[in-house]
Amino acid sequence: MANHKVTLLPANLTVEVPTGALVAEAIQSAGLEIGQPCGGQGRCGRCAVFVDGDGARRRSTIRLSTDDLEAGFALACQTVVEGDLTVTIPEQERVERRLVTDKTARSIEAPFPYDPDLQGIRAFRLYLAEPSLQDNKDDLARLETALAAAGYPGADVPLDLMRRIGSVLRECEWSPWVVLESQVWNRPRGPARLIDIQADPIEPVAVAIDIGTTTVSAYVVDLASGEVLGSAAEYNGQIQFGEDVISRIIYAGRNGGLSELGSRVRGTIAELLDRLHKRTGVDPAHIYKATIAGNTTMMHLLLGLPPATIRMAPYIPTVNLPAPVLAQQIELGIHPLASVDCLPGVASYVGSDITAGVLACGLSETEELTLFIDVGTNGEIVLGTRDWQVACACSAGPAFEGAGVVHGMRATQGAIEEVWVHTGTFEPTWRVVGGGTPRGICGSGLISLLAELFVTGVVDRGGNVKLDLDTPRVRQGEHGPEYVIAWAAETSTGKDIALTKVDIDNLLRAKAAIYAGFSVLATSVGVRLEDVQQVLVGGSFGKYINVEKAIQIGLLPDLPWDRFKFLGNTAVLGTYYALLSHHERERLQRIARSMTYLELSADNTFYDAFTAALFLPHTEIVRFPSVAGIWDREVGSAPARETG
Amino acid sequence: MANHKVTLLPANLTVEVPTGALVAEAIQSAGLEIGQPCGGQGRCGRCAVFVDGDGARRRSTIRLSTDDLEAGFALACQTVVEGDLTVTIPEQERVERRLVTDKTARSIEAPFPYDPDLQGIRAFRLYLAEPSLQDNKDDLARLETALAAAGYPGADVPLDLMRRIGSVLRECEWSPWVVLESQVWNRPRGPARLIDIQADPIEPVAVAIDIGTTTVSAYVVDLASGEVLGSAAEYNGQIQFGEDVISRIIYAGRNGGLSELGSRVRGTIAELLDRLHKRTGVDPAHIYKATIAGNTTMMHLLLGLPPATIRMAPYIPTVNLPAPVLAQQIELGIHPLASVDCLPGVASYVGSDITAGVLACGLSETEELTLFIDVGTNGEIVLGTRDWQVACACSAGPAFEGAGVVHGMRATQGAIEEVWVHTGTFEPTWRVVGGGTPRGICGSGLISLLAELFVTGVVDRGGNVKLDLDTPRVRQGEHGPEYVIAWAAETSTGKDIALTKVDIDNLLRAKAAIYAGFSVLATSVGVRLEDVQQVLVGGSFGKYINVEKAIQIGLLPDLPWDRFKFLGNTAVLGTYYALLSHHERERLQRIARSMTYLELSADNTFYDAFTAALFLPHTEIVRFPSVAGIWDREVGSAPARETG
Repeated sequence: MANHKVTLLPANLTVEVPTGALVAEAIQSAGLEIGQPCGGQGRCGRCAVFVDGDGARRRSTIRLSTDDLEAGFALACQTVVEGDLTVTIPEQERVERRLVTDKTARSIEAPFPYDPDLQGIRAFRLYLAEPSLQDNKDDLARLETALAAAGYPGADVPLDLMRRIGSVLRECEWSPWVVLESQVWNRPRGPARLIDIQADPIEPVAVAIDIGTTTVSAYVVDLASGEVLGSAAEYNGQIQFGEDVISRIIYAGRNGGLSELGSRVRGTIAELLDRLHKRTGVDPAHIYKATIAGNTTMMHLLLGLPPATIRMAPYIPTVNLPAPVLAQQIELGIHPLASVDCLPGVASYVGSDITAGVLACGLSETEELTLFIDVGTNGEIVLGTRDWQVACACSAGPAFEGAGVVHGMRATQGAIEEVWVHTGTFEPTWRVVGGGTPRGICGSGLISLLAELFVTGVVDRGGNVKLDLDTPRVRQGEHGPEYVIAWAAETSTGKDIALTKVDIDNLLRAKAAIYAGFSVLATSVGVRLEDVQQVLVGGSFGKYINVEKAIQIGLLPDLPWDRFKFLGNTAVLGTYYALLSHHERERLQRIARSMTYLELSADNTFYDAFTAALFLPHTEIVRFPSVAGIWDREVGSAPARETG
Repeated sequence: MANHKVTLLPANLTVEVPTGALVAEAIQSAGLEIGQPCGGQGRCGRCAVFVDGDGARRRSTIRLSTDDLEAGFALACQTVVEGDLTVTIPEQERVERRLVTDKTARSIEAPFPYDPDLQGIRAFRLYLAEPSLQDNKDDLARLETALAAAGYPGADVPLDLMRRIGSVLRECEWSPWVVLESQVWNRPRGPARLIDIQADPIEPVAVAIDIGTTTVSAYVVDLASGEVLGSAAEYNGQIQFGEDVISRIIYAGRNGGLSELGSRVRGTIAELLDRLHKRTGVDPAHIYKATIAGNTTMMHLLLGLPPATIRMAPYIPTVNLPAPVLAQQIELGIHPLASVDCLPGVASYVGSDITAGVLACGLSETEELTLFIDVGTNGEIVLGTRDWQVACACSAGPAFEGAGVVHGMRATQGAIEEVWVHTGTFEPTWRVVGGGTPRGICGSGLISLLAELFVTGVVDRGGNVKLDLDTPRVRQGEHGPEYVIAWAAETSTGKDIALTKVDIDNLLRAKAAIYAGFSVLATSVGVRLEDVQQVLVGGSFGKYINVEKAIQIGLLPDLPWDRFKFLGNTAVLGTYYALLSHHERERLQRIARSMTYLELSADNTFYDAFTAALFLPHTEIVRFPSVAGIWDREVGSAPARETG
C-alpha cells in the first residue's frame, strides 16, 4: 500500500500516511488537533478543511454546500487520502462563520436592475414665478403650475403641506425642493401627491420592514440608487404581552390592549430607525416611503385593526390586502405624509411575510416544484411553481423558539444553538450563541439535540429517553426521564440543563404539525414530497437550523441536501423588492390573490398526518431513507470506529 | 269739494274727510294714533296701512316694496283720499316685521329641483354573505364585493372604518348600513369613499356654513329631501381677538395665535351645531358633508393656513381654490370622515362668501348689468353679467359694524338700528333692536342717523354738525361737535348717546371707500353706474340697512328703489346651493376662476374716487339727483308742513 505526503498548513508540517487513511487521521498523526464533536461521523461539519491536490476522495460531503465545495472545503473525517495533498486547517472562527452565515450569505441586492421610475418617489427642485400686484395668483396655484410644468398636473397637495407652502416658498425665494409620490403602484394613472416641500435639498429614502412576532427587521434604502444603506433587527417590543400571535390577539382584546400593542411595535420600529439613523445618517423624517410585511396578526396590530376574529373559527381577518395608508394615520415615526404600503397576505395565518417570502425566493417564477418554508413563531408552508401555489399554516407553537421547553430560550447570548452527541460516550459538545457558558437551549439547539439523541440511540423512535444506557446523562428527573446536556458547574445558571420527556413531546408535536402540513399540501395537489425539486427555507429561524438534523427528527422531508436552500429573512427581502419596483409589487399582489389557502383545521386528513408524524422521524420510516440508514448504522449496529 | 267716508279698522270708526286729505289726517281726525317718526315725509315707512277701495291715490310709495303694494300697503302720510275707503291700521309689530324682515323674506329654498344624485352622499343597506371555513374571504373583501354589487366597485374604505368593520359586520349579522361619498364634484369618475358603516339605519345630513368675520351662519340640510331642517347664526368666537380680518391676521402671527383662532371658530360652529341638534334632533355625528364659505382670511384660519401674506403687498393668499379635506383634518365637530368642501374664492380680499353670494344672487346667470354688494365687516363688490364679472374689495373698516364710533355697537339688544329726525324740531325717533332702552348705535342706525341729519340739515355736505341750530341736541362735546340722539335718562347706560364729528368722519371714509369701489369697477369696464340694472345686496348688514338712507349718504349709488334687492346672507345661501348640487358647485368654481379681481391699492384712480366720495352724498351732487331733490326740499327751502 502506497504512502502519500500530506502537507498541513498553516503549521507547515508534512506527514506520510497510507492510501485509505482519513485526512483527520493525517492531522492527528502530525500532533495537530481538529474538533470532531460528532465523533467523526461527518454529521457536524466542524472538521472542514481546505484540500489542495487530486489525491483526496470525499466519501461524504454532507454539511458542505456547493459553494463550500467550490471553495475547496472537505470534511477531514470523511475524506480519504489517495495521493499527495496539501491541507489547510482554517481558523476555527472561519469554520464557525461558514456554518452560521454561509448558508444565508446573500448580499442584500435585488435580482433585477433598479429603475427609480418604478418606485414612485421623486425629489426635485421647482422654479416658480414670483408674485406681484399684477400677478397675484395664490401660492398653491403657483406651485401647481410649476408641478404641472414638471409633468405632474393635478397633483394633490395635502393640507399639512398647504400650511407650510407660504413660508417655504418665500424662504427659498420661490425655488423649493419637493418630494412627490408620482404614482401609487395600484393606481398608475392617479394624480401625483406632494409629500414634502422644503427650502433645502432633499435626498429621499425609504424603509422596508418585516414585523415578525418575535423579531422586527428593517432595511433603509436610498431611493436614488436603490441600495440598502443599512439594516437592523430587534426583538418585537410586543413580546412581553405574549410569545405567539394567539397570546397577542388575546391581549389585544383587553381594554387598551390593541393600542398598547400598536404602540409597542411602533416603538420597536422607532428604535430600529434611530439605530440606523446613527449608523447611516438617515434621518427618519426623510423616509418618504415604507413597505411593510408581517403575518396577518402583526399587520392588524400595526394598523390598529382588532385581530379577535383571526383566532375564532372561521378565522376571518379584517383585511388581507390593505390599501396604502399615510404614516401619520398609524403614527409611524417617519415623514408623516409618507405612504405606508402594508403588503398583501392570503389568510389569517398566511400573511404578507409569506407572500413577500415567495416573491423573494423566486417560487412564483420557477417551473420547478418548490416547497417554501418559513418557520418562525409559526410554521407557514407554500408548495407550488410559477403556475400555482398552495399554502397552509401549521400551529407549530413556540417550541422552536424555546418556549414550552423547560430549559428553552430564544437564540440570544448563552443559548446552546448546536449540539453534537458522541456516539460511543453519549457526551455532548455544544456551540453557544455569543460563546461563553450556556444558559439554556434555543430552537436550533433543540432540533440539533433531539436529532443527536435519536441517531445515537439515547431516545427511541417514540421519543422516550432510554434510562438503561451506561451514562449519568440519562436519568429520572423532576419532570420524568431526561438527558442532561450541561452540568450545573458548566452553566451560567448554576443548574443542570436537561431535555425532558415532556420537552421532547412538545418538540414532536411541533415538528409533526409542520411535517403534516407538507403532507397535506402535497396530497391536496396530488404530488409526492419526494418530487419536490427545491426546498427554500426562509425566516430567521431557518437561518440557523441544521437541515440534516431537521431531517433526522422528521421536521423537514428527506430530500438530498442540495435541494435545500437557506435564504434567511425572505420576508424583509421580498418587502425590499416590492419597495424598489411597482412591477414586483404587482407581482406580489398577484401572488397573494392567486395563492390557494388550505385551512388545516378544516381538513379531514390533517389529524391523521399529524399523528403519523409524531414519531422519530415518522411512523412510516420509508419516508426517511437517509435517516433509516444512519439510524441503522448508529443504533442498529455497533458504533463506528472512532476516527475521523 | 266732496267729502269721502274713511272707515278705520280694527277700531271700526268712520270719519268724513274732504278730497285731497291724507289718510294720516283721516286717522288723526278719528282720534287714533299712527307713528310718523320722520314727520310725515314718507321717509320712514312706519305709517304703513292696508287700504281697500279705489279712492286712494299713492303720492309716493317709497319704502314700499312690490310685495308690499300687492299686499295692499300704502303710506298714510303719502296717500291722498279721493273716494270712499277702508283703512286697516296694522298692529305696530306687523309693521316692524315688514320693515325688518320683509326685504329678506326668502324662504330657504333652492331655485332648482333637488336631485339627490347630485350631492354625492348615499346611505343604504348592504347584504353580505356570511363567512365560513369554506368561504374565508376577509371582511374588507366581503364588504367590497357588496359595494361593487351596489354599483361602487373599488370604493375606498378608510383605515378608521377598517378598524370598525369587523365588529359592525358581526353585530348587524352581515347587513350593515353604509354611508358613501359616491363622488366628489371635481373628480366625478374617481372611486367612491366609505364614510360610515353602522348596524343601525342612518339618515345622512349635511351642513352649509358661512364663516363671517363677525357672524357664523349654518344651515342643517336633510340629504334625502334637500330641505333645510334648521338654521342658526352666532357671533364668530374669534371676535375677542380683533374685530376685523387685519387684527385676526396679526393675532394669527403670534405664538399659538393661529391655532387659537382655529379653535375659536370651530367652537362657534360646534355651538351652532349643538343648538341645531337640540332644535332639530340632528346629531352632528350624522353630518356627513360640510360646505363652507367665508372670506379668504376666515378660510385660512379654519384650515390652519397662516394668513400673514394676505395682509402684505402683493396680498397673496396660500390658496383660493382649496381641495376638499376631511372633517378630522380640521377637527370639525361633525362625522370625522365627512368631506369638508371649502368653497373657492378669488383673491385675498374676495373670498368664497362673495363667489357663493354671486351664485346665490344669480348675477352669473343674468344678462342684466348687475351690481352685487356684500357689506359685512369689509365691503366687497362685484359688477357684471353672466358673461363677465369684475370684483374688488373696499377696506370700509368696521365703522358699519359699530366699531370706531364712540357710541357704536354691533346690532345686538339695545342698539339703535333705525332713526328718524323730525324736520322741524330735529327731535329723533328711533327703533332699538329687541325694543327697550338704547345702549348705543349699530351700523344701520348710523347710516340712518347720518342720512337723517344730512337731509334735515343738522350736518352739512362736508359732514360738519351745524352748531347754530335751535336745538339742544347739537352741541360742542368732548370729542368736538356732536348731535345727541338719546339723553342719559333715556339710555340704559345712563349716559347721552351722541354722534360726533369724529364718528361722522369715520363713517364718511367707510362709505367713500365703498362708493369709490363702485366707481372704479364701473370705470374699469367702461360702464356707467346709472346703467346698472339691478343692485343686489347681500350680507347680514345689508339685511337691515335702509337703502334710501344709504343712498342719501352716498353709500349706495342713486338708482331707482326697485332696482335694489336685499337678499340677506347670500354667502350661506350660495353655500347651500353648492352643497345640494355638483352642478352648482361647478358653476361656483367657474365663477371663482373667471372673475377678474381689481386690486384697488394697485389702482391709480381709486384715491381720486375715494376723495370725491368723502362728501355727503358726493362731491358731484349730480350723481345723486334724488338726494339733491330731498336736500333742496328739506334744507334748501322751508320745512314741509307737518302732516303725513
